[in-house]
Amino acid sequence: MKTILILGAGRSASSLINYLCEHANDASWKILLGDYQLALAKEKIKKYQGVATAFQFDINNEEHKQKYIPQADIIVSMLPARFHIEVAKIAVEHGIPMTTASYITEEMQDLNEQAKEKGIILLNEIGLDPGIDHMSAMKMIEEVKEKGNKIEGFESFTGGLMAPESDNNPWNYKFTWNPRNVVIAGQGGAVRFLHNGKYKYIPYHKLFRRTERIEIDHYGSFEGYANRDSLKYVEKYGLEGVPTVYRGTLRRPGFCRAWNCFVMLGATDDSYVMEDTEDMTYREFINSFLRYNPQDSVELKLMQYLKLSQDDLEMDKLRWLDIFSDKKVGLKSATPAQILQKILEEKWKLAKDDKDMIVMYHKLFYQSGDENIMRTSHMVVKGKDQTFTAMSDTVGIPLAIATKLILEGKITKTGTCIPVHKNIYEPVLEELKQHGIEFVEKEVKMSPSELSSL
Amino acid sequence: MKTILILGAGRSASSLINYLCEHANDASWKILLGDYQLALAKEKIKKYQGVATAFQFDINNEEHKQKYIPQADIIVSMLPARFHIEVAKIAVEHGIPMTTASYITEEMQDLNEQAKEKGIILLNEIGLDPGIDHMSAMKMIEEVKEKGNKIEGFESFTGGLMAPESDNNPWNYKFTWNPRNVVIAGQGGAVRFLHNGKYKYIPYHKLFRRTERIEIDHYGSFEGYANRDSLKYVEKYGLEGVPTVYRGTLRRPGFCRAWNCFVMLGATDDSYVMEDTEDMTYREFINSFLRYNPQDSVELKLMQYLKLSQDDLEMDKLRWLDIFSDKKVGLKSATPAQILQKILEEKWKLAKDDKDMIVMYHKLFYQSGDENIMRTSHMVVKGKDQTFTAMSDTVGIPLAIATKLILEGKITKTGTCIPVHKNIYEPVLEELKQHGIEFVEKEVKMSPSELSSL
Repeated sequence: MKTILILGAGRSASSLINYLCEHANDASWKILLGDYQLALAKEKIKKYQGVATAFQFDINNEEHKQKYIPQADIIVSMLPARFHIEVAKIAVEHGIPMTTASYITEEMQDLNEQAKEKGIILLNEIGLDPGIDHMSAMKMIEEVKEKGNKIEGFESFTGGLMAPESDNNPWNYKFTWNPRNVVIAGQGGAVRFLHNGKYKYIPYHKLFRRTERIEIDHYGSFEGYANRDSLKYVEKYGLEGVPTVYRGTLRRPGFCRAWNCFVMLGATDDSYVMEDTEDMTYREFINSFLRYNPQDSVELKLMQYLKLSQDDLEMDKLRWLDIFSDKKVGLKSATPAQILQKILEEKWKLAKDDKDMIVMYHKLFYQSGDENIMRTSHMVVKGKDQTFTAMSDTVGIPLAIATKLILEGKITKTGTCIPVHKNIYEPVLEELKQHGIEFVEKEVKMSPSELSSL
Repeated sequence: MKTILILGAGRSASSLINYLCEHANDASWKILLGDYQLALAKEKIKKYQGVATAFQFDINNEEHKQKYIPQADIIVSMLPARFHIEVAKIAVEHGIPMTTASYITEEMQDLNEQAKEKGIILLNEIGLDPGIDHMSAMKMIEEVKEKGNKIEGFESFTGGLMAPESDNNPWNYKFTWNPRNVVIAGQGGAVRFLHNGKYKYIPYHKLFRRTERIEIDHYGSFEGYANRDSLKYVEKYGLEGVPTVYRGTLRRPGFCRAWNCFVMLGATDDSYVMEDTEDMTYREFINSFLRYNPQDSVELKLMQYLKLSQDDLEMDKLRWLDIFSDKKVGLKSATPAQILQKILEEKWKLAKDDKDMIVMYHKLFYQSGDENIMRTSHMVVKGKDQTFTAMSDTVGIPLAIATKLILEGKITKTGTCIPVHKNIYEPVLEELKQHGIEFVEKEVKMSPSELSSL
């Protein structure tokens, strides 16, 4: 009888919890699910009486940590990312392996040696992005390399979007994940990448106008904007010397141009608190970024300031958000980003029957003898309902599979790591297929003129 | 015999040193001038043998501080702003008044009570900007208030520019002050101000396109862009409830549009280090912000990206800077801002006979009975030569005058303060006139239509 300790029963944990509970009987596992809100944890396991036990868990409570963590044979932390390290320290102390879907921090990396000494793995970045992105990219990259081909370029895009049947607003977008991260996306660091051997840099205020168009069979058109620092993937993915390395985020075409209106206004700024925000209307919020001129309408001033024509689709998108209305902001001492988030949350909220859709797309260019080949690989996953969203599945299922494989002794690597190793990504990707999380690969030869227009 | 201790003999200290040395004999003062570079200090006082003594002074040397500071009857700190506090702590301990031309820091403010107990003043912000701006603004504001008028708006602009006879490049600009501060101007905080009772916010990437045109008799046209936080002047200047409060920086028309090209490219970013900067050419620097496309010229890509036409004056200004040339950057691990600064320093360098020009301009709107009046006040000061620049005069002379007035017992205020008090600004402004630093005031009545177009 092995004990799996899951910490955190929030929205993104549903698919993970279900997977592990479904496998618990066959595998003789005991599941312990802890959350700050006991009721939430209970709700999540109510189908699995006898298999799983819920308890109240407060990461700031020393007693809780000392009581529950040492009981586990493996720990899955679904807590907010900043708390993983607290769990990891106790896990390492007691020699318990641990998995998370979050980016490795420096502190987590620092536990590498200790974890190795104890013979356990601290496996991070094994969700969707980071997670499936690493695994599917490494599979392509290593396959191509193993055949002795020379990689000329790697591009990778991920987006959390709406399934076509629920894609019913002018932005072709709703919040399926942390709204705050969507509002401040692209801030806080230069965007940089490599294009045909040239380092390229994009400032935040140009980011959403430097998009790339992508077509995916059966799913139509998307546009990708660059993620912050693509250069750090050079080492991560073993792409040293590869002339093009680019990572981006996917939206439906037209989203980025319209979003750029908010960027240009300054409405996504999270660095200062505005005056008198509680009584401010949405219209006043927008007007505070425009010249004073009470004779002109806010709409016209905005169009002139952002050089929009009256029939530009950006205006439809902006109007649809009610940003020109007299609705009250109602937030005390808020930053522009907080106010914008509030406005968006009202309109980009998922309806009861809405289904989300995760799209991932990689492009790998390589030389094979005299031929130039482009291999693409894409994955599209649709949500089942509001609980088992595509986001929850694609984050939780790889994490659950990896947790199982560690318990079963099938992942034997130790130390702090991410799933870029074949003996991790291969079995995880293989099992993901059974859950409808599968990549479609395609290869085309490139003509010299296609090559030169890259 | 009183001893004036001047710390720092750099470029901006020339006019200050001369003023105090010129007055030393009549007033029986002894001048001590300390600088890290002894030769520089000696050079600055060589005309004043017998009056002034130079010595080597290192702010990080405890012995130096304990030896020289306690000797003084008053201290003028012309050291880099971050070092004032070190001097101030010893000054307060020994009950010695002190003057600086720098912004008050929180630590300096914290010495207020101690300074009051010792009966001494720590007078800061008594140079040009901050300094003459405070004094001339407060004079207007208090005069208008004392007559019982209601202030409706206050705007203030300052610029360090070139005298018309030396204004001979397409930017109408050269570096007369710290080049780094020019390159990163407007970064690091939201720009905010009040316009007719509305709070207005400008993000950095729009700052140089939200300019105001200003005409000054005999000196022609200028454009002003907003300074970072105008709101903090509301309290400083006693403008609570005044609907318009705006502070800006002056340039010649066309500068801001062209500067905005660098902002839009991302070339003023100081937050990250670029790759391979030592061997980079200027052309490659610019190209790193543009799309990859080796078939097109960097010039054309830039024009397309920034929506410039071929005959736009921005292109003349950019070309004149040699940014499209193959000159080498030659800096190791440099930020975009550092590279841009290097490019500009070559072209915006003062020639031997160049004269600079300081322009300050205030606008005060007020109601007097039924009338709406606009009072303007402007000061234009031209430099004499490369040593006694307008910048050096306008920073150093008010500081020197205030130092003298404190020694003479004519400024009696104590504690940490800035020159917004009548008994400081009145005698300082009065004496500044003898040095050609003088404001011209003008009043015009505003018609209702003029008023409504403000």
